[in-house]
Amino acid sequence: MEPKTAQNSLTIMNELVLPNDTNPLNNLMGGRLLHWMDIAAAIAAQKHCNRVVVTASVDNVSFQHPVKLGDVITIKAKVTRAFNTSVEVRLNVWAENIPTGTKIKSNEAFYTFVALDNDGKTVPVPALIPQTDGEKELYEGALRRRQLRLILGGRMKPEDATELKALFKIS
Amino acid sequence: MEPKTAQNSLTIMNELVLPNDTNPLNNLMGGRLLHWMDIAAAIAAQKHCNRVVVTASVDNVSFQHPVKLGDVITIKAKVTRAFNTSVEVRLNVWAENIPTGTKIKSNEAFYTFVALDNDGKTVPVPALIPQTDGEKELYEGALRRRQLRLILGGRMKPEDATELKALFKIS
Amino acid sequence: MEPKTAQNSLTIMNELVLPNDTNPLNNLMGGRLLHWMDIAAAIAAQKHCNRVVVTASVDNVSFQHPVKLGDVITIKAKVTRAFNTSVEVRLNVWAENIPTGTKIKSNEAFYTFVALDNDGKTVPVPALIPQTDGEKELYEGALRRRQLRLILGGRMKPEDATELKALFKIS
Amino acid sequence: MEPKTAQNSLTIMNELVLPNDTNPLNNLMGGRLLHWMDIAAAIAAQKHCNRVVVTASVDNVSFQHPVKLGDVITIKAKVTRAFNTSVEVRLNVWAENIPTGTKIKSNEAFYTFVALDNDGKTVPVPALIPQTDGEKELYEGALRRRQLRLILGGRMKPEDATELKALFKIS
Amino acid sequence: MEPKTAQNSLTIMNELVLPNDTNPLNNLMGGRLLHWMDIAAAIAAQKHCNRVVVTASVDNVSFQHPVKLGDVITIKAKVTRAFNTSVEVRLNVWAENIPTGTKIKSNEAFYTFVALDNDGKTVPVPALIPQTDGEKELYEGALRRRQLRLILGGRMKPEDATELKALFKIS
Amino acid sequence: MEPKTAQNSLTIMNELVLPNDTNPLNNLMGGRLLHWMDIAAAIAAQKHCNRVVVTASVDNVSFQHPVKLGDVITIKAKVTRAFNTSVEVRLNVWAENIPTGTKIKSNEAFYTFVALDNDGKTVPVPALIPQTDGEKELYEGALRRRQLRLILGGRMKPEDATELKALFKIS
Repeated sequence: MEPKTAQNSLTIMNELVLPNDTNPLNNLMGGRLLHWMDIAAAIAAQKHCNRVVVTASVDNVSFQHPVKLGDVITIKAKVTRAFNTSVEVRLNVWAENIPTGTKIKSNEAFYTFVALDNDGKTVPVPALIPQTDGEKELYEGALRRRQLRLILGGRMKPEDATELKALFKIS
Repeated sequence: MEPKTAQNSLTIMNELVLPNDTNPLNNLMGGRLLHWMDIAAAIAAQKHCNRVVVTASVDNVSFQHPVKLGDVITIKAKVTRAFNTSVEVRLNVWAENIPTGTKIKSNEAFYTFVALDNDGKTVPVPALIPQTDGEKELYEGALRRRQLRLILGGRMKPEDATELKALFKIS
Repeated sequence: MEPKTAQNSLTIMNELVLPNDTNPLNNLMGGRLLHWMDIAAAIAAQKHCNRVVVTASVDNVSFQHPVKLGDVITIKAKVTRAFNTSVEVRLNVWAENIPTGTKIKSNEAFYTFVALDNDGKTVPVPALIPQTDGEKELYEGALRRRQLRLILGGRMKPEDATELKALFKIS
Repeated sequence: MEPKTAQNSLTIMNELVLPNDTNPLNNLMGGRLLHWMDIAAAIAAQKHCNRVVVTASVDNVSFQHPVKLGDVITIKAKVTRAFNTSVEVRLNVWAENIPTGTKIKSNEAFYTFVALDNDGKTVPVPALIPQTDGEKELYEGALRRRQLRLILGGRMKPEDATELKALFKIS
Repeated sequence: MEPKTAQNSLTIMNELVLPNDTNPLNNLMGGRLLHWMDIAAAIAAQKHCNRVVVTASVDNVSFQHPVKLGDVITIKAKVTRAFNTSVEVRLNVWAENIPTGTKIKSNEAFYTFVALDNDGKTVPVPALIPQTDGEKELYEGALRRRQLRLILGGRMKPEDATELKALFKIS
Repeated sequence: MEPKTAQNSLTIMNELVLPNDTNPLNNLMGGRLLHWMDIAAAIAAQKHCNRVVVTASVDNVSFQHPVKLGDVITIKAKVTRAFNTSVEVRLNVWAENIPTGTKIKSNEAFYTFVALDNDGKTVPVPALIPQTDGEKELYEGALRRRQLRLILGGRMKPEDATELKALFKIS
């Protein structure tokens, strides 16, 4: 399998916040946004793997700004690193109120996906070659985030997470 | 404000996995489940706060078992701890295929919510008093998870996260 | 087939009333609630039968209280009695406006379901053993309600409905 | 208020059965059909009352024939009788599989609606004048069905239901 | 194959404009209406062809009147002419605000559909025999509209469009 | 008002074709695609106008290739020309089946939108300055397409359509 670039998987999604996406204060509900992000990220992961993919995890996502009815959501998704049969996808989300001319960065997230063949078995995926400085930084951090997922999922002991320890500046 | 028990906020939600909730392999899409979990957790948070609430964050969620078309999803949500104007909610999710009699624990997650008044301003919420051993353990861990959210959101330095360091067994 | 208890089929469903569920006065539309009730009752029927089930009938349902946008609907469904290849399910529905702290019993209903095998043919279902006094009363009434359904469906003559006549206090 | 004819409220609705409307056997779910019927009946009731209307009740509905994915549903709704602030609507439902050329009568039902002013208060509605023999028969039966609803809703004693007793051929 | 009348394919569809169908000014979005029109026209085309049909084109549609939340949409669809393996369908759309008693003609459109067999191959369809003067006029115009579609789709040279030239009064 | 470039309004939308978007042959329904295109085009028009916009028209759209369940739809929308209170938007649509590595151009279309102020009144919009050769060609053609819309809408006589006549190579 030929390695691929991050740019190759770039996926852009725009959605209009409609009434059913909002709570009684007319704010976009977090769960709806997580759903849109999952679809955008799955498309990016599919582009890299050329396979059907299923969501394996979503990392911590925070919602710090209310998004209003009628706002336009823009999601950009790009694969950051490929592992054996899975990929990590970076998402950036903006919310724009066009009539008032305001646009805010509303969220950042990492989703991971596993690639499956037609029988639903996991299959190897192409490697990812980062190119820009930003892509290289995301590529490096992917190991550390993976260790955090394994610890939080109870599948790695914290003391074995050598990459993650760097986050806490521990030698 | 009277403190409340965790039991008071218990919310149970059952959903049937319909065709539009699935990918081309007939598996429930992760984003749809995150959306249902958000609604269940928001109801639990509302019961504790007696306020409109908005999602503040979702912690790392992993998806280890495929859930199929026609399966019944059961989500149980319960508040674990109240902070000043926010609450943390614990979710447990099961997927059941009733004709074949199989039921698996499919996911666990923590969502946090902020309580708002009618003008959309944050408001204080009642304290939570844990009662069972399980509730006490979740209550204790809430501080540590909160520090992890703050670090991952870039709002706390790792070296200040005294509670979280315990996770890595660092003095 | 082992008989089962009513408790075994208990199904709880919570739904948040969103904009698309409401009419121009911001009240939950009756048809949407009937749809949610059908899903909750079908899950309860499935749990009893361990089979795919299809709706056979819904009895008279009345809507006496408006339910508002943002309210939380709680539906409890439980099998009351099993017949040869079908079951009757009792539903109780509450509507709660959490910020204002009001909760009303909004509806009661009976749905019936037929159990099907994978070829879509009807199949026998386990018997139901009522345990509490309330369950026994619902179990007894099931025959009478069944006669009413048959009469209303033109499949039984009113004079043959011995159980139903008791409702009219006729010897 | 001028009285109106039944014909004036005639409402026809066609719907295509899409994947999300079906269960895992590819049959239309009963709850979805009840939802469509509610919308069709509400439009008929609105046409008679020239008011916003809300569902007050649905009478016993039975589902005797499976309706399949891709079938076309035709619903005809017509007001049968007006009471003080409410109307009864008759629904007939057909399911047609056009490629195979089969069309069956799938359901019959009565829904009732209450008319509301802009403040959500009940308001008087125009009388209905039945014209054809079929309309006159439905008009006559409306009183009897109303008594059955009141009894089943616990708001009338069976022995006071003089119209309904005729159904049981009791003097 | 027996020829058929236009009346045979008449399809009537009523829809209630719900919150999710509207933009932030509470007006029905054009795209939602185009979607409903596609379903109504597909049912009419199916009735004529007794086949699964797929949309081949939609002609110019204009939206000159805002349609509001709570309005009732009525769509009438009827086949105007059959070609070898396709049909043209005429749609008329009205929007009615029942409480205020206003009803406007909101749109007119032509959709075309291709008939397919179970393998997804195109199949011949029955001829259409127009009967009323209106049907005959639509039947005649169908050739001209077809030429316009072919030109706009780059599949016919404008100078070969003999029927269409009549529109421009060119000999 | 400052004139704007076409690039400024570029909007990209990716959608995954889910079961409810398809007909019984598992092909994307034309009406659903028209709906997505309307939302993408409305976002592009909003970006140019900085106003709420409503759909004024959609030009002839043809559907020549079946799009399948699980395919990824990519829609690119860009304003081509601004008139007094309205804009024309060009859409290009691709359908990609990622596992099999096929990607086809599935549709092209022009939608027009009118800009409204908060009272729903039409308002002037900024001019558009085309920059690339492709943008200039689309800008030039916009007058001709506008004349065709006016003729088809019965609001211009064909003989007055000087721009459009060029299409038919008539002096």
